[in-house]
Amino acid sequence: MKIYDVTVPISANTPVYEGDPHVKLETAQAIRRGDAANVTDLHFGAHTATHVDAPAHFIEGAAKVVEMPLEVLIGAARVVEIDEGVMAIEAQHVENLNGTERILFKTRNSQFWSEPEKGFRKDFTYIAPEAARVLVERGVRLVGIDYLSVEKFGSTDFQTHLILLQNGVVIIEGLDLREVTAGDYELVCLPLKIDSETGDGAPARVVLREL
Amino acid sequence: MKIYDVTVPISANTPVYEGDPHVKLETAQAIRRGDAANVTDLHFGAHTATHVDAPAHFIEGAAKVVEMPLEVLIGAARVVEIDEGVMAIEAQHVENLNGTERILFKTRNSQFWSEPEKGFRKDFTYIAPEAARVLVERGVRLVGIDYLSVEKFGSTDFQTHLILLQNGVVIIEGLDLREVTAGDYELVCLPLKIDSETGDGAPARVVLREL
Repeated sequence: MKIYDVTVPISANTPVYEGDPHVKLETAQAIRRGDAANVTDLHFGAHTATHVDAPAHFIEGAAKVVEMPLEVLIGAARVVEIDEGVMAIEAQHVENLNGTERILFKTRNSQFWSEPEKGFRKDFTYIAPEAARVLVERGVRLVGIDYLSVEKFGSTDFQTHLILLQNGVVIIEGLDLREVTAGDYELVCLPLKIDSETGDGAPARVVLREL
Repeated sequence: MKIYDVTVPISANTPVYEGDPHVKLETAQAIRRGDAANVTDLHFGAHTATHVDAPAHFIEGAAKVVEMPLEVLIGAARVVEIDEGVMAIEAQHVENLNGTERILFKTRNSQFWSEPEKGFRKDFTYIAPEAARVLVERGVRLVGIDYLSVEKFGSTDFQTHLILLQNGVVIIEGLDLREVTAGDYELVCLPLKIDSETGDGAPARVVLREL
């Protein structure tokens, strides 16, 4: 049973969303320097690379990342391919989705991961608020996308995030779906168990298994 | 199908191994301060809370954490309970283990997670080198323990780590097995995809599913 790793690696070269903390990985102990072992010191934002957004990311006092339900983070999921020319996932793209509680959108964004040296891209394909509303109406419990936000870059009202998070929909951002084709899989998304003050999110390791 | 979360949370109060970097979780953006969203800045060592050791932790130039095989990190595993009085898991405790490639030891250590405020404990139960040798001979591919090292505290030759890592055995440290009883489960251990210079390890989210 093949396992696809759809996680973006965390390295010093990983692009981060504009304004977010940059990735710093420092060698705290090194065998080559005479230490007994190698130990890396990690330093990055909670929304780095492939990660989940908790309701508390945009809603003060809402559920934190440690409270996100494993029963939603693990289970049957559908990868839906969106045509390369599409800049916004609109209601029309999701109206015919049925019979799945977890949807991962594979868009033109996945190819951005082939060129991390270009840094953060603002021209990513996003989910329009109206499409988010349809997903909620359809009973979808988890939505994933293959770049660093579900929201149009430059949005000031964050409607897509709010519609999803107010309805308890789990958001996964920063997936790398280059290797997988459209179809049904078992999703296993395991975010770090970060218990911070605001609990806004956590980087995750995400895999898809063939059914 | 019940899912057990056997992961220790990462918070400012999480005990870390002596000499390792401490956990710092800082609020980088806060709705209550007028920012659009909450964003946490994460800062901790690669061997914090529940984590995996890659061969490169103790063997210069060996496999890094990004290269650890998902086929070993996911699969059938056995939780073995070790009597409360046992300070060292010896060959006698593992000689009769058969038919499993992944073993998680539930020892007196799990109770330490009930008192994180006591800080790092040096008196944890560990795996003796002779037991590690038997595990390798039995064909075991993954070993987990419920405190921050498989090795006796104060060891200077790191024989348990070396025997396991030289033979490509995946090590999980810092499991919290308080809630699970002895028996067979499906293990899903997903470490962060950290691509650091030394690649020594990564914090992980680990769950057990009832079969």
